Amino acid sequence: MTIQSVNPRTGEKFGTLIPETTPAELEAKIALSLESFQTWSTLPPALRAKSLHAIAEKLQANSTELADIADLETNLGKVRLIGEVSRTSFQLHQFAYALESGDFISPVIDSAVDAPLPQGHPELIRTQTPIGVVAVFGASNFPFAFSVLGGDTASALAAGCTVIVKSHPAHPQTSVRTYKLATEALLEVGAPMGTLGLINGVESGRMLLEDGRISAGAFTGSRQGGRALFDISNKRATPIPFYGELGSVNPVVVLASALDDPKGFVAGYLDSLLLGNGQFCTNPSLLFVPVDLSLENEIESQLADRVPSTFLSEATKMLHDKNREALRALITPKILAGQKIGEVGFYSSPTVFLSRISDLQGKESALSIECFGPTGLVLTYKTVFEVTDLISRMEGALVASVFGKVDDTQAPIVVRTLAKKVGRVAWNAWPTGVAVATGQQHGGPYPASTSPLHTSVGTWAITRFLRPITFQSLPSALFNLVATNIEKS
Amino acid sequence: MTIQSVNPRTGEKFGTLIPETTPAELEAKIALSLESFQTWSTLPPALRAKSLHAIAEKLQANSTELADIADLETNLGKVRLIGEVSRTSFQLHQFAYALESGDFISPVIDSAVDAPLPQGHPELIRTQTPIGVVAVFGASNFPFAFSVLGGDTASALAAGCTVIVKSHPAHPQTSVRTYKLATEALLEVGAPMGTLGLINGVESGRMLLEDGRISAGAFTGSRQGGRALFDISNKRATPIPFYGELGSVNPVVVLASALDDPKGFVAGYLDSLLLGNGQFCTNPSLLFVPVDLSLENEIESQLADRVPSTFLSEATKMLHDKNREALRALITPKILAGQKIGEVGFYSSPTVFLSRISDLQGKESALSIECFGPTGLVLTYKTVFEVTDLISRMEGALVASVFGKVDDTQAPIVVRTLAKKVGRVAWNAWPTGVAVATGQQHGGPYPASTSPLHTSVGTWAITRFLRPITFQSLPSALFNLVATNIEKS
Repeated sequence: MTIQSVNPRTGEKFGTLIPETTPAELEAKIALSLESFQTWSTLPPALRAKSLHAIAEKLQANSTELADIADLETNLGKVRLIGEVSRTSFQLHQFAYALESGDFISPVIDSAVDAPLPQGHPELIRTQTPIGVVAVFGASNFPFAFSVLGGDTASALAAGCTVIVKSHPAHPQTSVRTYKLATEALLEVGAPMGTLGLINGVESGRMLLEDGRISAGAFTGSRQGGRALFDISNKRATPIPFYGELGSVNPVVVLASALDDPKGFVAGYLDSLLLGNGQFCTNPSLLFVPVDLSLENEIESQLADRVPSTFLSEATKMLHDKNREALRALITPKILAGQKIGEVGFYSSPTVFLSRISDLQGKESALSIECFGPTGLVLTYKTVFEVTDLISRMEGALVASVFGKVDDTQAPIVVRTLAKKVGRVAWNAWPTGVAVATGQQHGGPYPASTSPLHTSVGTWAITRFLRPITFQSLPSALFNLVATNIEKS
Repeated sequence: MTIQSVNPRTGEKFGTLIPETTPAELEAKIALSLESFQTWSTLPPALRAKSLHAIAEKLQANSTELADIADLETNLGKVRLIGEVSRTSFQLHQFAYALESGDFISPVIDSAVDAPLPQGHPELIRTQTPIGVVAVFGASNFPFAFSVLGGDTASALAAGCTVIVKSHPAHPQTSVRTYKLATEALLEVGAPMGTLGLINGVESGRMLLEDGRISAGAFTGSRQGGRALFDISNKRATPIPFYGELGSVNPVVVLASALDDPKGFVAGYLDSLLLGNGQFCTNPSLLFVPVDLSLENEIESQLADRVPSTFLSEATKMLHDKNREALRALITPKILAGQKIGEVGFYSSPTVFLSRISDLQGKESALSIECFGPTGLVLTYKTVFEVTDLISRMEGALVASVFGKVDDTQAPIVVRTLAKKVGRVAWNAWPTGVAVATGQQHGGPYPASTSPLHTSVGTWAITRFLRPITFQSLPSALFNLVATNIEKS
């Protein structure tokens, strides 16, 4: 079996045939990764940081070439893709800085206490050790930032784990080229050969996650695919942590106090909704608007100017179209649609569904349908309590936004309700755009994440791959031979 | 169906019949807990701390009465049980201190950066929010420290979660009495009625964990029971974090340099092995000894003086005896046994199995058999590489010990190997005795824990029940109305 690139604009295959990884190749890659782990995991953090910097520089130096390859496979546009390479490079540097400064890996030194129980205790030093070999599943929608060298790989490598990436079939050449650049950089700085591995094919991905030598998994993608991998991780004889981001229907609440400029607001809404053809996990897919602030005409007129764009793959388009139809059939909304699409390629008309909260009664399951693509649902409300009541019955989400004035008495009620359901609440800002920062939280209650205590973006992501270990009364001479992230004097 | 106390010394039932929780009662308890969560979770940390102090003081004030009740049900001895109440009370105070000092709950304030992407970002404040209503499953072997008010409950309450405890059937009266004292204390300080709930019965425990309103589970107990609950947590439509401690075969490695005093060493070994009739998850169940340092005669002679004690329940005894027999049948060891047991009660003879690593080839699965009770396995080795090779193929464990001299060149090799498998490595100390301290790590790779990134003992245990959430650009006036653990000026 082979994998080949497909041009989303035409639906035509092109370029090299990339063979799926065979079981024998997979076995060799896992064995090599485990062997490399023995070295990589015990490198002083500063040396791992050096490797991360080297990969980051290699990526940045080749950003134009990488964007060219990715654009053919994804049609995301070269400007966006060059920006995404920069972000990916920046992210690698950030983890390297964290290692250099000792953030996240600095131990807790709990000196011996000479007292009767329960107060008294021996010296306890709680430090962090890399969890093991990590399986990373590349996402379709970020061919760099959530793919071969994305946040999962960067944070796992920073933690001292080795990584095997299962490439996403929607950008195989981008994956292979990125991987080649990364291995060049790793070899140049003398890192072990198997620090990073790449495999191709669904079946080899499944076998990878089932393998007893794998200690954690990370994934961003569809709910169905992510849940299947989550289940594999948990059904193993030895279950492992699985950090899956399984999709999200992100609520945006517009308070009556918000709308001084309906025209500008709708422009912002459509920009966020249609960014990257709507293929963002932070897409503002669910917009709550006061019923008396009718945005219908404004949305309809602006939507008419929006040009259809392409999906990342035929599979992405089919899943979107299927879910959009399921949502339509369930709630029978008023439909506002953008320009019609042509006959070839994986295009879709931008679409906004319009309904009232009061019409949703008994059909709340509609709010679990994620139309991953350029489709939004606008629900009008009479009172803000209709909104909070509905949100409190929704599933978890990655992010929510609230638009309003700071002295609006409804604002704290809405923010509090949303805070129970999401990983991030943005004020007067659209949910798309997730900064790589220490203050970031990109995760949330299921299905936003299978591991709501962790983030997949920002420097805290490294903690997913660090296991705490306590050394009790270990003499300095021995401690310094064993621990790599601290010296005990 | 009812539950009744059983005297482990006689096997006879005694005391009040305690009815199992009915589905209707369970429903009422979950509804009340969820309602109370709305209040408890939004209390300022200092007020939650006050409640924890109040419970701790109430426990301590009633320690003699509690120990008397528990001793009849567990036969663990009043001295140990009074000590355990103190430990449990201390633990509650520790979490209260953590809340008062802001440890673990202090947010990351990431100020806005005015720069082009990817560096630039809005203000991001990453703070912590309680995960929701938590189901805690009490353990048999610590009727206080890992039961109704044990570490799981204390850390979850501290985090701002409400808790429903499923009592362990081996100490029902202790559970009911502890629960009553806790609710008295909570009411005295004005905490919501449903902050803590108690249910009885296996079936209601299962229903509790399956309920969509429960957001996390915590458990300490047998591998079989824990795995069943772990599976329930993951098969839910909305999976939840499940912090299970499923048992552990803890390796202790004696280096040739260690043994200046074989007699004292064996006394220490048997003290640790037989503590609480061996019913400790940190029991030194697997001892590696150099073949030329024969401890056989010393163990045999000291074992003869050790008096049989009782299991916590008939079920615990049956599971132990079954596993001991499975281990014996698999490795056909030399058997050293303590004094014989009588006809009544849940007694067991202290037993040490003796074998050689070289005789274990092809039978390594023996090292996964946990004989939870007064049974140890001593394996002799010729070279330390036999030991490290075997350990590297073992499952995860909670704790390991190494006995030796600091300049022994074999010591770092052994410590490094153990560090990959366990949550704590103790030097020249037996593994039993887990201090409640900030530097503690009580957890480890599966089956030691279903969540190897977390600890169930020590103040870090609170992080299991805190979910990160980021507020983006939320104005101070609003922020201070919504977040409870920080003021933004």
